[in-house]
Amino acid sequence: MNRLQGKTVAIVGLGLMGGSLALALRPHGGRLVAIDPDAATRQRALAQGVVADATADLTAGVLGADLVVLAAPVEAILELLPAVAAARPDGCIILDVGSTKQAIVAEMDRLPDSVQAVGGHPMCGKETAGLAAADPGLFAGQTFFLCRSSRTGADGGAMAEGLVAAVGAHAWWIEPAEHDRLVALVSHLPYFIAAALMAEAASAADVTGHVWRASAGGFKDTVRLAGSEPGMMAGIARTNRQAILAALHSYRDRLDELISLLEDGDDGALGTWLAARQDEYGRYRREKERD
Amino acid sequence: MNRLQGKTVAIVGLGLMGGSLALALRPHGGRLVAIDPDAATRQRALAQGVVADATADLTAGVLGADLVVLAAPVEAILELLPAVAAARPDGCIILDVGSTKQAIVAEMDRLPDSVQAVGGHPMCGKETAGLAAADPGLFAGQTFFLCRSSRTGADGGAMAEGLVAAVGAHAWWIEPAEHDRLVALVSHLPYFIAAALMAEAASAADVTGHVWRASAGGFKDTVRLAGSEPGMMAGIARTNRQAILAALHSYRDRLDELISLLEDGDDGALGTWLAARQDEYGRYRREKERD
Repeated sequence: MNRLQGKTVAIVGLGLMGGSLALALRPHGGRLVAIDPDAATRQRALAQGVVADATADLTAGVLGADLVVLAAPVEAILELLPAVAAARPDGCIILDVGSTKQAIVAEMDRLPDSVQAVGGHPMCGKETAGLAAADPGLFAGQTFFLCRSSRTGADGGAMAEGLVAAVGAHAWWIEPAEHDRLVALVSHLPYFIAAALMAEAASAADVTGHVWRASAGGFKDTVRLAGSEPGMMAGIARTNRQAILAALHSYRDRLDELISLLEDGDDGALGTWLAARQDEYGRYRREKERD
Repeated sequence: MNRLQGKTVAIVGLGLMGGSLALALRPHGGRLVAIDPDAATRQRALAQGVVADATADLTAGVLGADLVVLAAPVEAILELLPAVAAARPDGCIILDVGSTKQAIVAEMDRLPDSVQAVGGHPMCGKETAGLAAADPGLFAGQTFFLCRSSRTGADGGAMAEGLVAAVGAHAWWIEPAEHDRLVALVSHLPYFIAAALMAEAASAADVTGHVWRASAGGFKDTVRLAGSEPGMMAGIARTNRQAILAALHSYRDRLDELISLLEDGDDGALGTWLAARQDEYGRYRREKERD
């Protein structure tokens, strides 16, 4: 069953996420409206037929929408939630796709009960931002976290699941705190690790000038996330600071363990440690391929 | 000018590197011979026409070769160098493709002057090993380091450059110590960073069971190098320990700086730090695209 058939979906924010959602939803028969402050983005979206309508005015844009999707950085979502609720005293369903969930779901809990609100987070992305990077296949086969708030009714939950199915992702209902701990580990920690590697390599590049030329595919992949939008990542850090710090401290302990193995010169112990990592990598890849 | 035309090239070790070299050299008219201890690998290489001849016997395999390429882990290369020189009292040119260069070039310096020897290191690879993963396009457009030893004459240098050109890579002559410092930063450090991330995530996965399902493309790229062959990486660590430890200590300082920024809660300073990393990433990508 296609729950979006004949519905109006307003997408607030036509960046990589909002744009990719619009492209992925386009074949599913709903009417798509974009709300974005950037005139060039609105023009591009209309010219390319990404959405049927586009406006800079939140109140006008969400008018009559069955589902309002908030595709913005976390802190913008925190401000958009009460604004959308105020613009829709007649009620609507709100789904956000922000990167952390505890702060957002807490804000959803405070909304008037005229609206329904569901927390969401698709586990996909690129290090490039903006509508130009949007991709209708971005969500295919990926995990799409959903979090219930005290404003999530049966309709809201079903509508959120309908959107997840329409874009080809797998819905996974989860508690906000567990979500934030998991993404601190598998998403935010890799970003900060990559950012620190970028700092280290760029500092060396300033001295020798040969670093980039020597770098190859391994460096490229390991450092890729350092290209992420810093404002978005700072907002993630502000709303998930404790879990990120716990992951970073624990990661630093692993690094210290490795440094000790190298300093001790106990080659057997180092070999065993490295072999365990390759085993874990194999297990991880097999789990992902089975999904 | 094709310097390999009509020459016999013996490749010792038909793994990812040796196999890819053979496939990339095949169209260039030389006769290719493989020396590999694994019977199944030799059969596969012959059946697929990767090489004209294959043997497990080093002395027989290098007999009559104009160029002997050592495509093995670093410590195996250290043992192969005097063995090849002993097998060829009539002389030949030896090129290795090992991952560190100081220990290997020092060993080359000790060879009898009947042979010429050049240190080499193509900056490319995969986290998968073996002939099955070999790829003739592996070297295209990549940096291929070359190091002179006291056994590198004009013929040896020209032959090494000829091989680099034939496989589509860019030759870059470099001092062994500078090479080892550079690869500690752009190749070995990313590996150890990825291995520590693998340890951290796998440890969490043992507890919650949801980690892999939550992980997406960012995690996948950042952790990829943890799948590298541990024996090969342990040998790299043993022959480049000081440079790797220096890189790891400096990296840990960057991580500590980042942790302090997060702990201090100074959002402006954190945002500035993260924005600098995105700038550096942009600079790095532009440099690579210009290459």
